[in-house]
Amino acid sequence: MRTIEWRDGTVITIDQTRLPHEAVILEMKSCDDVAEAIKTMKIRGAPLLGAAAAFALALEAYHSKAEERGELINELENAAEILKGTRPTAVNLFWAINRILDKARGFSGNAKDLATFVVEEAQKIADEDAAANRLIGNYGAELIHDGDVILTHCNAGALATVEYGTALGVVRAAWEQGKRIKVIATETRPKLQGARLTTYELKRDGIPVTLITDNMVGYVMYRRLVSKVIVGADRIVQDAVINKIGTFTIAVLAKEHNIPFYVAAPKSTFNLTNTSADVVIEERKPEEVTHIGSQRITTEGVDVLNPAFDITPLEYVTAVICENGILYKDDFGKFKANL
Amino acid sequence: MRTIEWRDGTVITIDQTRLPHEAVILEMKSCDDVAEAIKTMKIRGAPLLGAAAAFALALEAYHSKAEERGELINELENAAEILKGTRPTAVNLFWAINRILDKARGFSGNAKDLATFVVEEAQKIADEDAAANRLIGNYGAELIHDGDVILTHCNAGALATVEYGTALGVVRAAWEQGKRIKVIATETRPKLQGARLTTYELKRDGIPVTLITDNMVGYVMYRRLVSKVIVGADRIVQDAVINKIGTFTIAVLAKEHNIPFYVAAPKSTFNLTNTSADVVIEERKPEEVTHIGSQRITTEGVDVLNPAFDITPLEYVTAVICENGILYKDDFGKFKANL
Repeated sequence: MRTIEWRDGTVITIDQTRLPHEAVILEMKSCDDVAEAIKTMKIRGAPLLGAAAAFALALEAYHSKAEERGELINELENAAEILKGTRPTAVNLFWAINRILDKARGFSGNAKDLATFVVEEAQKIADEDAAANRLIGNYGAELIHDGDVILTHCNAGALATVEYGTALGVVRAAWEQGKRIKVIATETRPKLQGARLTTYELKRDGIPVTLITDNMVGYVMYRRLVSKVIVGADRIVQDAVINKIGTFTIAVLAKEHNIPFYVAAPKSTFNLTNTSADVVIEERKPEEVTHIGSQRITTEGVDVLNPAFDITPLEYVTAVICENGILYKDDFGKFKANL
Repeated sequence: MRTIEWRDGTVITIDQTRLPHEAVILEMKSCDDVAEAIKTMKIRGAPLLGAAAAFALALEAYHSKAEERGELINELENAAEILKGTRPTAVNLFWAINRILDKARGFSGNAKDLATFVVEEAQKIADEDAAANRLIGNYGAELIHDGDVILTHCNAGALATVEYGTALGVVRAAWEQGKRIKVIATETRPKLQGARLTTYELKRDGIPVTLITDNMVGYVMYRRLVSKVIVGADRIVQDAVINKIGTFTIAVLAKEHNIPFYVAAPKSTFNLTNTSADVVIEERKPEEVTHIGSQRITTEGVDVLNPAFDITPLEYVTAVICENGILYKDDFGKFKANL
């Protein structure tokens, strides 16, 4: 099963907050259902957020009672506003919404045909993401050799995408090619996507994985236990990669230890009209830090920072792997020029 | 109250695994009681481990039925072996044990007088630690200025020492001098000493503290929210500082951002006959990583690393603050020569 699927007016996904303990299937019937699932991180991962937002608009269109094309466009625009208010950092969500709205506005048929068109376009976005991940996997696997130990952060796997994964797509492709590799997964506080999701995915596929706390990254590099780092991205701007909090810390450590630091992400993650100064880093509620599950882990009333993402300047990035290939720093400039 | 106290044949301390939720007082009557409390981290913090080991020998001596001086020495040597088997990395424990054993062996009185002498020597070790922390605080406070934001890791506070603290001793001394400072505390997975103990101590003293997850250190430095780092140490060898896992990661980030990185530790932490190659890094049980409290946070059966400490080469250390003063890299060499 894909991580997200359209089934006749219902969108199906897995509740990622309940993994790895329970595999609870979510059925969403409206844009509001999807928006709520995104806010609460039942759905997460930049490429998946793009597909989810697209399917949320598809749900609006499919269930709409609008009889006029203009009315449906209005409804889609209102739904888009709700979706854009869910999470500010990952760009794929905005990219998917804008793609569908732009195409809907340019569509000349009636409301019913437009609804069908929106559902098809959402499906196309999902299919493209699945295809992009395979390509990213294949390109990225060229960089991976027998004996590599790959450190990854958060979850940039099948669960963060429609299927296969970005960073873990590279790992999967290398593994499927028979390369003997191992993965070190950081637990990724505060939401523990590494501990909960990455270990779950990799163990299911039989790929060797070792879990560490985030603050062990320096130690495993010092001990030469890591040969490459591969992470995903929530947004790639002109000068930086925006990804899960903790990514920049790993990038600095990789640079200090001369370990290649790769970012695997589809083009829907690229936002090259902006720089890091334009990016809003989402600050999430303090309880994610002060509690684990229902358990308080600190003194009552303590102040907390909880940025969900950080900013890794491109100088720390060895290459970006996307569905067009491997973009080294110089290529990246050329790539920018061609967008 | 001091963190550890001798009261007529009983050693009193606070159970640090229950903080900040409950203040449970532990009463220990034997060396075995103390060894068990050390193993389970009810007692932790390098300087406190030194005092605790000393008091454990004091308990043995005080309650001994030995009538011969040699018999008591034997009992103390057996107790010392048990204590040395508790935790391998922090050197203060070995230092305190060896100091008492050496002095006991050189003591010429009878068994009863030797017992009294051992209790007095243990008390002296505790008193010296308390005094050393005040001196460390005063020397270190010279480095701290109005407006400083000090990042600290784990807990190098009153709870890690007999009283006042090393890294937090510096913070306290600066605060008592009226300097307007703030602290950023890392939560310090897996055992969360930062979230549980450092925030607790600082809030009780009214010193502003903000809690972050360990992987946010890069972000707060990137945002220029940190002006200095001060941490404690479990062992300082010729070429490196051994401290709580995560310290090296912070040191690399501090270097990359030109932020001073200070280590505050009493001389009982110095082990300058050894290098980092000689140090055994304690590997603790996987459940500390796979669980938080009783709550499993990851996939069943996943492999885990759990080194309790890491190694920060001296090149990353701006200065070591001890009871003799501030030792910059050059002074450190001279200091070594004088030991």
